[in-house]
Amino acid sequence: MALTRRALLEHIGTVGGLGAAYLAMEALGLAIPTAAGAENFKLPGGSGDGRSVVILGAGISGLVSAYELKRAGYRVTVLEARDRIGGRAWSIRNGDRIVQTGRPDQRASFSPGLYFNAGPARIPSTHRVILGYARKFGVGLETFVNVNRNAGWDFGGKVQRERRMVEDMRGQLGELLAKAIDAHALDGQVSKDELAAVRRFLVPYASLDDKGRYAPGGSSGWSVDGGGYAQAPVPLPRLAFNDLAPSPAVTLPYLFEHIWDMQSTMLQPVGGMDRIAHAIYQQVKPSVRLRSPVTAIRRSGDRVRIEHGPGSQMTEADHCVCTLGANLLEKIPNDFSPAKKAALKGVNYLASVKVGFEAPRFWESDDNIFGGLAWTDRANENVIYPSNNFGAARGVLVAAYVAGWTNRDNPQKFAGYGNEQRLEVCRDSIEALHPGRSKLLSKGVSVGWGLVPYSEGVGALWPDGPGGNGARGGQYAELLKPEGPIVFAGEHLSYQGLWQEGAALSAHEALKLVAAMAKASAA
Amino acid sequence: MALTRRALLEHIGTVGGLGAAYLAMEALGLAIPTAAGAENFKLPGGSGDGRSVVILGAGISGLVSAYELKRAGYRVTVLEARDRIGGRAWSIRNGDRIVQTGRPDQRASFSPGLYFNAGPARIPSTHRVILGYARKFGVGLETFVNVNRNAGWDFGGKVQRERRMVEDMRGQLGELLAKAIDAHALDGQVSKDELAAVRRFLVPYASLDDKGRYAPGGSSGWSVDGGGYAQAPVPLPRLAFNDLAPSPAVTLPYLFEHIWDMQSTMLQPVGGMDRIAHAIYQQVKPSVRLRSPVTAIRRSGDRVRIEHGPGSQMTEADHCVCTLGANLLEKIPNDFSPAKKAALKGVNYLASVKVGFEAPRFWESDDNIFGGLAWTDRANENVIYPSNNFGAARGVLVAAYVAGWTNRDNPQKFAGYGNEQRLEVCRDSIEALHPGRSKLLSKGVSVGWGLVPYSEGVGALWPDGPGGNGARGGQYAELLKPEGPIVFAGEHLSYQGLWQEGAALSAHEALKLVAAMAKASAA
Repeated sequence: MALTRRALLEHIGTVGGLGAAYLAMEALGLAIPTAAGAENFKLPGGSGDGRSVVILGAGISGLVSAYELKRAGYRVTVLEARDRIGGRAWSIRNGDRIVQTGRPDQRASFSPGLYFNAGPARIPSTHRVILGYARKFGVGLETFVNVNRNAGWDFGGKVQRERRMVEDMRGQLGELLAKAIDAHALDGQVSKDELAAVRRFLVPYASLDDKGRYAPGGSSGWSVDGGGYAQAPVPLPRLAFNDLAPSPAVTLPYLFEHIWDMQSTMLQPVGGMDRIAHAIYQQVKPSVRLRSPVTAIRRSGDRVRIEHGPGSQMTEADHCVCTLGANLLEKIPNDFSPAKKAALKGVNYLASVKVGFEAPRFWESDDNIFGGLAWTDRANENVIYPSNNFGAARGVLVAAYVAGWTNRDNPQKFAGYGNEQRLEVCRDSIEALHPGRSKLLSKGVSVGWGLVPYSEGVGALWPDGPGGNGARGGQYAELLKPEGPIVFAGEHLSYQGLWQEGAALSAHEALKLVAAMAKASAA
Repeated sequence: MALTRRALLEHIGTVGGLGAAYLAMEALGLAIPTAAGAENFKLPGGSGDGRSVVILGAGISGLVSAYELKRAGYRVTVLEARDRIGGRAWSIRNGDRIVQTGRPDQRASFSPGLYFNAGPARIPSTHRVILGYARKFGVGLETFVNVNRNAGWDFGGKVQRERRMVEDMRGQLGELLAKAIDAHALDGQVSKDELAAVRRFLVPYASLDDKGRYAPGGSSGWSVDGGGYAQAPVPLPRLAFNDLAPSPAVTLPYLFEHIWDMQSTMLQPVGGMDRIAHAIYQQVKPSVRLRSPVTAIRRSGDRVRIEHGPGSQMTEADHCVCTLGANLLEKIPNDFSPAKKAALKGVNYLASVKVGFEAPRFWESDDNIFGGLAWTDRANENVIYPSNNFGAARGVLVAAYVAGWTNRDNPQKFAGYGNEQRLEVCRDSIEALHPGRSKLLSKGVSVGWGLVPYSEGVGALWPDGPGGNGARGGQYAELLKPEGPIVFAGEHLSYQGLWQEGAALSAHEALKLVAAMAKASAA
């Protein structure tokens, strides 16, 4: 098969689109093992044959690209705008500076050993690729507690333990269904046997008494705990439905643990989320150039020419893996096709905000909360308790994770606050959840990702939503296509969007294209 | 107030019962702080005044009693039948011998650093007393993962991931309720507003489509995972109700995480459950006599005389705290009142069985299972994956925890098997859950608690069940009463039965009685 490289690139980039590229790879006999699991990804050994690749961005997809290309024999240069690697996978420690456009810089002053995962903080156990890299490079993993029935839900001005809300809701829905079955409302629609089985199941599942009424039996908590000797426990009375659902804001907390990639226990790297990025970085460190923001992306014959800082520099290469978000890429001068330029416009990015405080671990000693999340209809939305070092004197409390969980307008609203006002909202929220304790919060810092240079958001919001499976249409398809020697990667080009897993998976796809081009060119 | 000690003892022991004892304590002005939390229990300083107490049993309630009495100025002797402390809180390590009546002894040969929690393995985060002792004595705590949606449920000969069972069940129940509401079956019984709110809530909660039908959207899992670029995920189709509930055996797994003291994440001591018992032991070690089984419990005037091994020894003391289970105590010669003797008869003890194997961590690398439980209707019932040291080469897999979870006859049946047969059942179960992997299981040992000398079960089964709050009636009330200078403690004398918390709580109650008696006597 005598496709010239040029012809192949044109074919891939402008005519057939991505499907054609895969067909070409297949036609070229380019065997890339994937059957044994995505975590075993490996380009054919020596496929690089000394060819050069410039990688834009040293986040997860850039670092994964650099590592995989290097071990396949490519010469790699990674250009990273910041003075650190990891991109959004950022663990803030003592001394780190937080820059936001339009806000005073903040300097973190956490105690030694403490960190604040300002970006991703948890990994679903099903994310085999990112976990595979962690394992390969010796990054320790520990449990991230993502659900805690002891934590508080603060909605409509009332705080209840999650336990009571969740269990009362299940009980009351079960009671309604039992009522309907007992009234023969479903006879004929569902088989008699199935209805009988459902009705029997509801008794323990919804804690129904012999009249079919939900009777709390401890799952929702006790008003008096069981003790030694004669102290029998006393169940909490049931809440009214209105208390369980005072507003639509409370909906997501009920659903959260049922989202596929928000499992009740997840994983976190020991020592901070950035440990994975750093472990990959160790494999490719000499190839990474920090403080090198890209100022233009140009094609130069078959090759690519990147203009970048510091100062006015140029790096040429045979290929380019561009991992910059569509929101950033749109603004960088480039030679892209009109279709690509059009597709880069208007990709909506989530601009979430996180706030971290240091504090003595009052949530553990007062409230038996060892990791997990609290929820609120206040603007801070979500509180994350540390999952590690239980019993230590101090910890970092994430007192806000604002991503539209309880109100889709919250990220914009909260990001609009000044740094101090953000902390104030959090202190009020913590005071409601833990009366008398907000005064123990110290060293608060906030990161509004929409204002962070070289990020300007945490991820693309495709119409199907994060983790969703809807069709994404032509704009997405266009963004996947190479531009000649330039291929694209990043969480936004995956169906595991807003996750490090998606960044790595999309990098693998991009690298397959590079390998296909290299092979065709060598043929 | 001039109650003589003798009179008080008689009053407490034979006339007024426990309520009278508390009245006496109050009358004596015996202030024991409890308001600040049970974990702050402390007898009045110096209340012991050199008085002697013999404690029967060095499990949690015996060790807690010894520690609290010592720091209040009592002279303490603890008699322990075994050659180790901790009682049922037993972490088995390399070289440990497992004795069961009627079975060959087993010798554990786990690799260094590995342990098998043959007794308790998890602590609810709400168990403030046992956690308080752990904190006080520097025992590290880490997350015990008690629920894992990635784990398998093996019922009716079919294995499904828990995720699919749980999410499909919620979806299908929600669909039925939506159907009933749409058919106006509940009009009039529930307010129109509430019905509308419930119906709206069901859409996301039960993943209902616009026809009100449950349409899996990923919560139950994917048949194809989302990938990089164009690989959209594909939801698993819904299971039929019969597959979700093939038999009543599957009921408990659906309920498990909703049980108050079986939270989705719990706590475990770093290094093995016995670390807490050992930490308390370090406080009282010189007072503990191992290999000293009690052979008779006698009163001697106002005092108590314990006959015990090794050989024929006697220990006299002013008071006795007896922490032996009712099942054991019934068989030890004693001077107890006829009422007490009667009450000690026929307390039903759970005779659960656990099996531990060592293996490479195939469940992590193959199946993304990092801690949590699998369930089955096979005789092994319940599998527990390790919650610690993720990514380590090897771990201890608890391949059976048989306690009647899926069939109440299982403990007796499984305990009846020979050691090797128990392992065989487990290997078959693991093979079903993890095809091709059972051959990796090695060094299996089993502990049938009903056959273990000085335990003969793991705990009293009161009619209200473990963690329940039902009335326990006269037999229980009788067991709480002191016999003159002898007071009683143990998990069986608490409303946190079958937990270390209950053992500690009951000890605190028993110690209050001792202090009341000491005070009265000194008055």
